[in-house]
Amino acid sequence: MLKLRSGRTLYYGKGDVLSYRTYAIPLSVKSIPQSTYTGDPNIIFAHNITFSVSSEVLLTSFTEGDNAQVVATDSMKNFILRQTAHYEGSTTEGLLAFISERFMERYSHIDAIEIRADRLPFNSVTIAEGSSWNDSQLVFRRSHNEHASASQKWIRTANSLQLAEQESALSHIQLIKVRGSSFYGFVRDEYTTLPESYDRPLFIFLHIFWTYEHAEDALDSRRGNYVPSEQIHDLAHTLFHLANSPSIQYLIYQIGKSILTTFSQLSEVRFESNNRTWETVMEPEHSAAAGVFTEPRPPYGFQGFTLTRADLIEGE
Amino acid sequence: MLKLRSGRTLYYGKGDVLSYRTYAIPLSVKSIPQSTYTGDPNIIFAHNITFSVSSEVLLTSFTEGDNAQVVATDSMKNFILRQTAHYEGSTTEGLLAFISERFMERYSHIDAIEIRADRLPFNSVTIAEGSSWNDSQLVFRRSHNEHASASQKWIRTANSLQLAEQESALSHIQLIKVRGSSFYGFVRDEYTTLPESYDRPLFIFLHIFWTYEHAEDALDSRRGNYVPSEQIHDLAHTLFHLANSPSIQYLIYQIGKSILTTFSQLSEVRFESNNRTWETVMEPEHSAAAGVFTEPRPPYGFQGFTLTRADLIEGE
Amino acid sequence: MLKLRSGRTLYYGKGDVLSYRTYAIPLSVKSIPQSTYTGDPNIIFAHNITFSVSSEVLLTSFTEGDNAQVVATDSMKNFILRQTAHYEGSTTEGLLAFISERFMERYSHIDAIEIRADRLPFNSVTIAEGSSWNDSQLVFRRSHNEHASASQKWIRTANSLQLAEQESALSHIQLIKVRGSSFYGFVRDEYTTLPESYDRPLFIFLHIFWTYEHAEDALDSRRGNYVPSEQIHDLAHTLFHLANSPSIQYLIYQIGKSILTTFSQLSEVRFESNNRTWETVMEPEHSAAAGVFTEPRPPYGFQGFTLTRADLIEGE
Amino acid sequence: MLKLRSGRTLYYGKGDVLSYRTYAIPLSVKSIPQSTYTGDPNIIFAHNITFSVSSEVLLTSFTEGDNAQVVATDSMKNFILRQTAHYEGSTTEGLLAFISERFMERYSHIDAIEIRADRLPFNSVTIAEGSSWNDSQLVFRRSHNEHASASQKWIRTANSLQLAEQESALSHIQLIKVRGSSFYGFVRDEYTTLPESYDRPLFIFLHIFWTYEHAEDALDSRRGNYVPSEQIHDLAHTLFHLANSPSIQYLIYQIGKSILTTFSQLSEVRFESNNRTWETVMEPEHSAAAGVFTEPRPPYGFQGFTLTRADLIEGE
Repeated sequence: MLKLRSGRTLYYGKGDVLSYRTYAIPLSVKSIPQSTYTGDPNIIFAHNITFSVSSEVLLTSFTEGDNAQVVATDSMKNFILRQTAHYEGSTTEGLLAFISERFMERYSHIDAIEIRADRLPFNSVTIAEGSSWNDSQLVFRRSHNEHASASQKWIRTANSLQLAEQESALSHIQLIKVRGSSFYGFVRDEYTTLPESYDRPLFIFLHIFWTYEHAEDALDSRRGNYVPSEQIHDLAHTLFHLANSPSIQYLIYQIGKSILTTFSQLSEVRFESNNRTWETVMEPEHSAAAGVFTEPRPPYGFQGFTLTRADLIEGE
Repeated sequence: MLKLRSGRTLYYGKGDVLSYRTYAIPLSVKSIPQSTYTGDPNIIFAHNITFSVSSEVLLTSFTEGDNAQVVATDSMKNFILRQTAHYEGSTTEGLLAFISERFMERYSHIDAIEIRADRLPFNSVTIAEGSSWNDSQLVFRRSHNEHASASQKWIRTANSLQLAEQESALSHIQLIKVRGSSFYGFVRDEYTTLPESYDRPLFIFLHIFWTYEHAEDALDSRRGNYVPSEQIHDLAHTLFHLANSPSIQYLIYQIGKSILTTFSQLSEVRFESNNRTWETVMEPEHSAAAGVFTEPRPPYGFQGFTLTRADLIEGE
Repeated sequence: MLKLRSGRTLYYGKGDVLSYRTYAIPLSVKSIPQSTYTGDPNIIFAHNITFSVSSEVLLTSFTEGDNAQVVATDSMKNFILRQTAHYEGSTTEGLLAFISERFMERYSHIDAIEIRADRLPFNSVTIAEGSSWNDSQLVFRRSHNEHASASQKWIRTANSLQLAEQESALSHIQLIKVRGSSFYGFVRDEYTTLPESYDRPLFIFLHIFWTYEHAEDALDSRRGNYVPSEQIHDLAHTLFHLANSPSIQYLIYQIGKSILTTFSQLSEVRFESNNRTWETVMEPEHSAAAGVFTEPRPPYGFQGFTLTRADLIEGE
Repeated sequence: MLKLRSGRTLYYGKGDVLSYRTYAIPLSVKSIPQSTYTGDPNIIFAHNITFSVSSEVLLTSFTEGDNAQVVATDSMKNFILRQTAHYEGSTTEGLLAFISERFMERYSHIDAIEIRADRLPFNSVTIAEGSSWNDSQLVFRRSHNEHASASQKWIRTANSLQLAEQESALSHIQLIKVRGSSFYGFVRDEYTTLPESYDRPLFIFLHIFWTYEHAEDALDSRRGNYVPSEQIHDLAHTLFHLANSPSIQYLIYQIGKSILTTFSQLSEVRFESNNRTWETVMEPEHSAAAGVFTEPRPPYGFQGFTLTRADLIEGE
């Protein structure tokens, strides 16, 4: 929420700006041992963008109904869609910076911008061509699973623009490990009805957020330090596969350390996690035997946690 | 997001705790000229509660997988539901304070709590009894329209508990004024395709947030200063009905001043608004003539703004 | 699903045609003892329309890609929105008939139409004017609660159009009775874990559908026999208030008889109901004492049932 | 909707029965040239089941509130979950048949059953193990993209059970082809505002339904004729990739012929399709050049069509 110097919240903008760009510049990234991902052809480079602005001179548009300094949000939408055509990079973060910088240049009475975007994932389908299987360059499947996003806050200073805040994310990861997780040793008292479990299926929802040491690494993939959300997912599910976790708390700490170790260009990683573990109807007779489970009642447990590079030193 | 002294985000808790309490203490409030609302029998006092805790001693549950200090979120849910039965007040804010204080008393190793709740509205149906129409005391209609909510942050200090933050809200108000609104005089440039309008239907979505000068007025309705969300709605729609507004910005400023003037017990009011105005298909021939409109494309304009009591002095 | 004479399903059309008409002709209906509803000013007459067509001559558009007989669905949308402006009646059913008849007249190669619409409810807000409370004629609240709908099927015959099917409905009624319902005496066996209950809160979701003996009564409210969904709701909730029901099955049968008795112009009434009863956490000590309940797990019970006028004779 | 002999709709049942079975029997199917899919380890075999029953003897539960023949829907849920543990096959269709047959055996007063299930897809994640990439046998990703489903209707006859209706489906396929589709030559008249297009991106939503000649092929995959939804998807997207389609109508006809040709064990295939094509903001300069598109307004075109084996003979 953008604020004036007085501390008063004041902003306006446009949400759900759905921007589908075709044939953006392909993305290429370094590979890591836990992932097959090395880039994206960016044939469909699609985003849902939310854009807002603030400025001292906009105060009278509220207090006096004076629209003279108001760039209509419909014009903002036109601006965003048209500039999307001119973007010559390969990353969501780069697109948001490009739009923000151009807007600040064009409208000198605007003091600050908040912008965020959800990448709308379209995955190539696999086509048999002769004796090989290829990614179609024409047909793509819209995915409603986990998706990447990014957010930025830009401030006009005396003689430049400053990227005051930036965060990248992968949201709505949903992973279940069918066995090899436990939860015991917690506080037992008059409010406790949950039994201890030593080998439970564990179903987690995860949102992972990361911040670069140098924002340029996010904005310009040609620097070679871009961190793709696909590799973040692969690190997370690999660790989940390998670990025998005593709690989600411990699991996300381990994932966090793995991310910061793999990507030295990141300064911080943050987690929001949910526990969506099924309720047991028929206990399996042994760990790889048939079981039957059902949906739990709505209340769900959640966790929030941040790690910085300091955790790598202290941690172990 | 609760944080440790080090600045590290650390919390865990339970979401979607659906708590349906029957026969809570009825609420009675002062009437205001713009509203018929004077209270609620509270026969159904229902909430969706989100509850989280933080503490320095919880750090090892993440870093070492040590569950010894972990109150299971399942136990939190049991705690919340059972304490709901013992609450003897009439307000959402009072319920949240009651649960938080009890939890802090019971679990002395917890340093901080964040709690929020959406009131789940159930409205009495109207029944013919003899020659009069009465509110049923038995049958209620679940409403999916605007709803009240409240959020609080509690901190343990050396020798007491402190209510560090509190806000009450009415969310998802959706109001349309079929004529008598305009939008013109805004910036026109190469990005402008929106025509000026002098008499448009205006469809707004509104979230209104308010903060009490003295939190006790929210927690204990017997002090006589409770501000019910129903009266906030009635003030907002009355002002919308009366005003000929040149923009949503100006409209929410006027509603804000009306709220702060009516309720001197409030220190601040905050708005998040959306413009969801229909697209014109057949322009009405005059302002009360038939017109045909359709859904706009997804991008929607939005606004954010805060007023304090200082606005009443400066404002006019 | 429209079909060709061969039995092959073949249709195409347009969905989510959102049509907001202002200042339609007001609706006036006869009052009934259980309801205060007598009509609607129809200042906002808004619908979400789904429209599809079929015809033998359209077969080659599928089999050969021949578009020569294809009215683009974009043109259908234009047709629907423009005709909405010309409709001079007061009911959803009348609007659907008007659009269908005009379309069949305009496009003689179309053999059959299916059309349905959900009414989008906008309720007037209450305004203090002098010493009285009036319905605003300007400001309306979008409701997301129960809503009316209608569906029709039109067939072209040798020398006329025939309304082959018609049904009106009220969907997503959600009513809870806090006490005075029971459920016992059902089959108890090795699969039964549900206890019998003698005084439970009962939370039902209801969809009610009705068919007129003479469709003209639905299409033209000036005949004086229009059945408004608001009166259907009031009959249903009055019966729920009065009855001590041993099951939803019995409750909907009683509501059905009440509807057919009140409205002799209807030939049939149909129900789809759900049981969404809360789970008990703290049993009330007596029936009007405080209790605490929570959300049940997802599986929900449901019922379907139809009554005709014959049930009034046999029934009692 | 199940009906009595009198034609009266009468049923009741349980919806959203979420049944997560682990370690079901793996599925193995014949490969086809257009797909890499050959089976599923069925480590997670998860379904959302809807189950309803009807019977002449249930009439008095509605008309007289007599619960003596009522199997509580809570008991139905218990029945379904427990029988799921005993199912020894590999297909959704087989599970539904198993549950239905067992229920009919156990409750001889039930005349008819309708059952349907959505498969809840959980896809294995890929793990680096040594120098190869393997599917994890432990960690799975919940998918919210297209999903398979099946529905059946069972009737008790004099001395047996009859599978009266059966259909399998793949729902919510969402595919875009970025270029190589056209739409022109349609009716142009006073309602037409849509321009003709000769090379448009085409975004379709598809639901595909199929019926087996012999239901046993669906129920028992060991017969070797099971048609997996994954191969249906691969056939559909391959055809979309290859074809230059003049309309969705023609496209689905071609997909339908391809499905019936590939799978001679199917008697019928049915389509429900939507057109969700983006709106053009910046036209690409040539077909593989950058373009910018945005979300269309809500109304969307749709199509419905059925093919049988007769279409293979007549078709070409």
